Amino acid sequence: MLLYGYFRSSAAYRVRIALNLKGLTYDYRFIHLQKNDQLSPEYAGINPQKLVPTLDDGGHLLTQSLAIIEYLEETRPEPALLPRDPVERARVRALAQAIACDIHPINNLRVLRYLMKDLGVAEDKKDAWYRHWVEDGLQAVETILARDPATGRFCHGDSPTIADICLVPQVANARRFKCDLSACPTVERIAAECAQIEAFARAAPDKQPDAE
Amino acid sequence: MLLYGYFRSSAAYRVRIALNLKGLTYDYRFIHLQKNDQLSPEYAGINPQKLVPTLDDGGHLLTQSLAIIEYLEETRPEPALLPRDPVERARVRALAQAIACDIHPINNLRVLRYLMKDLGVAEDKKDAWYRHWVEDGLQAVETILARDPATGRFCHGDSPTIADICLVPQVANARRFKCDLSACPTVERIAAECAQIEAFARAAPDKQPDAE
Repeated sequence: MLLYGYFRSSAAYRVRIALNLKGLTYDYRFIHLQKNDQLSPEYAGINPQKLVPTLDDGGHLLTQSLAIIEYLEETRPEPALLPRDPVERARVRALAQAIACDIHPINNLRVLRYLMKDLGVAEDKKDAWYRHWVEDGLQAVETILARDPATGRFCHGDSPTIADICLVPQVANARRFKCDLSACPTVERIAAECAQIEAFARAAPDKQPDAE
Repeated sequence: MLLYGYFRSSAAYRVRIALNLKGLTYDYRFIHLQKNDQLSPEYAGINPQKLVPTLDDGGHLLTQSLAIIEYLEETRPEPALLPRDPVERARVRALAQAIACDIHPINNLRVLRYLMKDLGVAEDKKDAWYRHWVEDGLQAVETILARDPATGRFCHGDSPTIADICLVPQVANARRFKCDLSACPTVERIAAECAQIEAFARAAPDKQPDAE
């Protein structure tokens, strides 16, 4: 398998965690987002959205981090990253999507660029925008986690799921942008639990060969 | 089942289509987003993200449209809204997420409100923002659809999948905001195919009891 990614991409980070949790090895191709490698005709041919990650599994070019992780779950089921019960699976997927749909895309590089270049938003207001969506979004996740006994050592029970795989990169971004997570103690506790696990630790941006 | 939704919410529209395709009946509770019903303490207790939709299935409160649809697929498998093969499932999910993660959230009501109220963006520039993300995003979807023989009468083969369920509400929004879809003939063709199907037609915003 070959993963097209970027050390700082949250979405690529998710796939790295999933691959590590499944015990899968992969080659890594750097797509330098700040240098616009993703806009090259060659990469656009691989991923027409011009986003990372893309996973090449035996010639099958898979895109969208959550679709890739569901694919890994279906083709390499152990260890499971989703519970078995449909209601529990729905809870885990909803937590993952609360991050992957409702926080991350609003703060993606191309969106921040549009704010600054096309709308002339100043850096401090762009940073406030970033923090707003992270803090607002993670507070909703905190509420979901804190009120439900299904939350365990991790977001759902006592083994990592797709929800944790989305949570950890988002918390890493929150820290990088100095977001206020004081209202999110459960989120912080779970992120700290995950950091103890080698599959999560090894996937961190600063551990990647393209880290700067 | 009870669906908390709003006639114009794309995400609620997706769930309405899925429920109709599965032949499931449901009651409908209106959450008027423009009037901020979603911010009420009562609704925030049901859905801490203060977003629609929420589906109550026998007391299980399910959130996030794609998680809800996967739940429906797992609990009411016929007719299938995902193919069987993992690579094909990944393609369908990636198409769905290209819309549900990378177009829709950036143009959500709360984001447009932040642009105007917090950043002082003028209406015309807010509309240009909206059109930019729809046109850019649907052109990527068009490329994925147009180049792959897996595309059939619908986004994947000849029966509707989760990809079509995401595509149709996004195209409806594109038309409402007068986006330029001239570069997206496959997207428009598939949306027209779907419009012929009663399950899609009956889920349209203007057919809902809370339509204005």
